[in-house]
Amino acid sequence: MTVDERDVRTLIENWAAAVRRKDYEAILEHHAPDVLMFDVPPPPESRGIEAYRKTWDLFFRWSETPIVFEITEMDVTAGAEVAFAAALMRCSGTEASGERVHLPFRLTVGLRKIDGHWTITHEHHSVPATK
Amino acid sequence: MTVDERDVRTLIENWAAAVRRKDYEAILEHHAPDVLMFDVPPPPESRGIEAYRKTWDLFFRWSETPIVFEITEMDVTAGAEVAFAAALMRCSGTEASGERVHLPFRLTVGLRKIDGHWTITHEHHSVPATK
Repeated sequence: MTVDERDVRTLIENWAAAVRRKDYEAILEHHAPDVLMFDVPPPPESRGIEAYRKTWDLFFRWSETPIVFEITEMDVTAGAEVAFAAALMRCSGTEASGERVHLPFRLTVGLRKIDGHWTITHEHHSVPATK
Repeated sequence: MTVDERDVRTLIENWAAAVRRKDYEAILEHHAPDVLMFDVPPPPESRGIEAYRKTWDLFFRWSETPIVFEITEMDVTAGAEVAFAAALMRCSGTEASGERVHLPFRLTVGLRKIDGHWTITHEHHSVPATK
């Protein structure tokens, strides 16, 4: 594993831990101002850090304490300037019906090194289509 | 736009055109033997080029001539060795009910330059969850 691969892996693990603490500052710390988010629920895309932040408002309304947001398995590919990671994840939340749901999902993260710091410019979260 | 960004964009545009021609050889031409696919329908993940090929069997059973598989908008980020692209796409197909469906979807592609050639090692296709 290269130093860049290790750094990207650590950054994503720390980001997932920040989600579990509901720590917005740490969740957003390594994101680009023009981050492009493809989230599990609609809308199909959210552009920019403010729209990205709102996707977490939605998640935290659905999730409940203790927050489950775990990396099951993750592949990291990193060059000197650009990297991406693909992961199998799981989270838990409560549907409008009151039903508690355990949701496995897929995550792809795209990063660019900006001023020497790995920065997330893209996230893609999804579940397989059900029909 | 750098030469690498242009090359990755062209590779993905050619891949989408190969899908529209149902040209398996060209669809698979620039993929790694251990490609990791997160597709729109289940299963949640497909590992390896044979499993990846089968996801296209499923797509072509659902799709119909003329095949719609178009890039609406695409952002490409490329370093010297690693790249990723995020795109809004659309396709069309026919459900088991006989209903013709026009499906906008999201695509993220991860690539690595291997022996001087850009190679797709990861694809993530999805639609937002409906519930």
